[in-house]
Amino acid sequence: MKFLIIGGDAAGMSAASRAKRRRPDLEVIVLEQTMDVSYSACGMPYNLADPVRQMDDLVVRPAHVFREKQDIDLRTGHRAEQIDRNSKKVKGAKNDGREFELSYDKLLIATGASPIKPPIEGIESPGVMCLKLLEDGRRIKSFIKENGVSRVVVIGMGYIALEMSEALRARDIEVSMVKPRPVLLPWMHPDLSAMVKEELERHGVSLYPGHNIQKIESSDRTLRVVCDDLVLEGQMVLVAVGVKPNSELAQEAGLFLGPSRAIAVDRQMRTSDPDIYAAGDCADAFHVVTGERTWVPLALRANRAGWAVADNVLGRSVELDGIAGTAVFKVFDLQVARTGLNMKEADEAGFDPAQVVIKSRSRAHAHPGSSPILVHMVSDRKSGRLLGVQMVGKEGVAHRINAAAVALHAKMTVADFVQCDLAYAPPFSPVWDPLLTAANQLIKQM
Amino acid sequence: MKFLIIGGDAAGMSAASRAKRRRPDLEVIVLEQTMDVSYSACGMPYNLADPVRQMDDLVVRPAHVFREKQDIDLRTGHRAEQIDRNSKKVKGAKNDGREFELSYDKLLIATGASPIKPPIEGIESPGVMCLKLLEDGRRIKSFIKENGVSRVVVIGMGYIALEMSEALRARDIEVSMVKPRPVLLPWMHPDLSAMVKEELERHGVSLYPGHNIQKIESSDRTLRVVCDDLVLEGQMVLVAVGVKPNSELAQEAGLFLGPSRAIAVDRQMRTSDPDIYAAGDCADAFHVVTGERTWVPLALRANRAGWAVADNVLGRSVELDGIAGTAVFKVFDLQVARTGLNMKEADEAGFDPAQVVIKSRSRAHAHPGSSPILVHMVSDRKSGRLLGVQMVGKEGVAHRINAAAVALHAKMTVADFVQCDLAYAPPFSPVWDPLLTAANQLIKQM
Repeated sequence: MKFLIIGGDAAGMSAASRAKRRRPDLEVIVLEQTMDVSYSACGMPYNLADPVRQMDDLVVRPAHVFREKQDIDLRTGHRAEQIDRNSKKVKGAKNDGREFELSYDKLLIATGASPIKPPIEGIESPGVMCLKLLEDGRRIKSFIKENGVSRVVVIGMGYIALEMSEALRARDIEVSMVKPRPVLLPWMHPDLSAMVKEELERHGVSLYPGHNIQKIESSDRTLRVVCDDLVLEGQMVLVAVGVKPNSELAQEAGLFLGPSRAIAVDRQMRTSDPDIYAAGDCADAFHVVTGERTWVPLALRANRAGWAVADNVLGRSVELDGIAGTAVFKVFDLQVARTGLNMKEADEAGFDPAQVVIKSRSRAHAHPGSSPILVHMVSDRKSGRLLGVQMVGKEGVAHRINAAAVALHAKMTVADFVQCDLAYAPPFSPVWDPLLTAANQLIKQM
Repeated sequence: MKFLIIGGDAAGMSAASRAKRRRPDLEVIVLEQTMDVSYSACGMPYNLADPVRQMDDLVVRPAHVFREKQDIDLRTGHRAEQIDRNSKKVKGAKNDGREFELSYDKLLIATGASPIKPPIEGIESPGVMCLKLLEDGRRIKSFIKENGVSRVVVIGMGYIALEMSEALRARDIEVSMVKPRPVLLPWMHPDLSAMVKEELERHGVSLYPGHNIQKIESSDRTLRVVCDDLVLEGQMVLVAVGVKPNSELAQEAGLFLGPSRAIAVDRQMRTSDPDIYAAGDCADAFHVVTGERTWVPLALRANRAGWAVADNVLGRSVELDGIAGTAVFKVFDLQVARTGLNMKEADEAGFDPAQVVIKSRSRAHAHPGSSPILVHMVSDRKSGRLLGVQMVGKEGVAHRINAAAVALHAKMTVADFVQCDLAYAPPFSPVWDPLLTAANQLIKQM
């Protein structure tokens, strides 16, 4: 059997490795359009923060290891351009322009996502950068070094924009962040996002939300981001307004798309063609809270989905529950985390949501070094179910969110959750964990 | 209605406060034999570590606040000595020796636990200390100061002994730990306890497990802990070999006792007498994994049980699920956490246990500052259920254990748990959280 994989990042290489490990005689071919496979894309901002580190430190396993040690036919510089489902063939072109054609028995589309480039005049100017591929990371890093960049304008305020701003500030680079929409982190409860805003400003990041961007001008090594009522200057502009799934190939092959135009897959990661799977940032997932399709492109799902594809290709019939939308990011000294639904999402999903925001502490009463933790918790009045949690704090947020995520998978009510025996010791928590305090308060609202 | 409470610490004061808050006209009387109520007992080692801090910093709410602001009839220096269930009266004595007698409609026994004093000759010598009450903390702190203590022998190696050793080392006091049993932390998987042992030794704590203690000799301000083959010297000896429930009063009143002679209570915290409740370290609980009675005296359960008693006294009929045995403690730079059952406990509870120990990292591939995390996970081969988790690491352990604790409450299988959408960002975790890596490996053993 021939298992062909388009895309050699998290989902693609997870699938390839697992399939080969489980069935060494399987023919596994991976087509990767860049020259890089298996690297920690999420690590790029932290790598950029340190001028000494090589960007290639982020490579988890280089291409030759997959080829030599794992006997995977990994073809870098191979771009897939067309899937012919009738003849079960993939056509494409190599870096040198030569065409290729490959047949498959089972196909995995793991084409990932791409940064959205808003239609702004001048967005193609030299010095206007996006961060997605390892090659982007290398390019940004060398651009900063070669041009002695001291000022950067970041367009967008999502988590990659925030992580990049922290990285640039770590190198003493001035950072201005600008976006058309008026609210920083609109998915977040305003009490929590206010803490993030304060943290950014405390670290010298200038925030300009609510500014429509007209164009990017370039002259004399300076880029000018021109808004209706504001001009921001820098030697570099970073565009980080979000990503979109690379689903064109699937769409042209007639496969169904789901939310945000991600490739629709069932719980076995099968597309609408039973011989074609999709996994990673290009594919959708079921949300464990709503049961509906959703698109949240994150690394754990990509890896997990890659494994599930391998198992299913080998006939093991593995189903994935789906995702809770759990995410965490660092903003300077703050940890910001979420899982499940916010009020708007809960409302849209047909729940009758109740909410609470509580302020607690990271450590016990009178324990030195304690800092505030804000918890936002959402539930459904009708069923009593826990629907979502957001948290912000300097410590104890990144892993604490996982307790709520597990509760969402278990479809716990808030009344169930508040009974949970969570860990307590003075250096790590108040006696009542902030999550339990939130749940206790939320019950009163229901 | 008259609600009488014996014991003014976590469980007793939680019950008193909640009852008064919910029904201000209720007559609530609390009898506390010491002069201290509502303090963070768990904070004492950390307070002792800092010579500048006052021990009374740990008082969460002083007695007069309960009296004046909350209208609770709080009687400190009142020792309850007898419960007459027929006449529904409690008899006792005050600090000044005068006797008292009080009637009740509903009674809560919240008498806590006491340190075990092993029958060692010389254990009553001056300078031999136990840590349980705030008064103990004050006594130890002033003893160290007044005697310029530079060497301490700690008898016992449980978590209080370990926390105290860290506190003493923080003050540059030499610490030797000794106990008769040969294994440090016998409930822990040896791979994990080896990490704890290394951490203790790295911080200059001398460990002498497996030494039978004959007597404690005292001469010229020096205490000598004499073992069969070893003599340890110090100006102070700390005895921390565990605690036992203060259940004599309940037993003499003919109430049923449960495991470890803790007062047996149902899910509403009622003893075998429907008008008498018990809560806190003196009472038992149901274990959510085994469904059996167990005794794990910890602060969160005490507070939660106190609230449940108040609600039940007021007729709200609140039931508690029970405990998962979740606990965390700090040993120098290590976080040590557990929830649920270890292999021995799982075996004794009638499960067919499988286990795995995995070594993972606290941060992503190539992220600076990463450190090892060991995870020990136990499951049941028959049902597939997750039964317990232990973890040790420098960061990301204390709160991560809560994800496993919630899974135990939800009675998840390992196959369910491994599907959970846990948080990932490079500063906080590998893509596959250490808990998920353990679960993935454990599935292979089942």
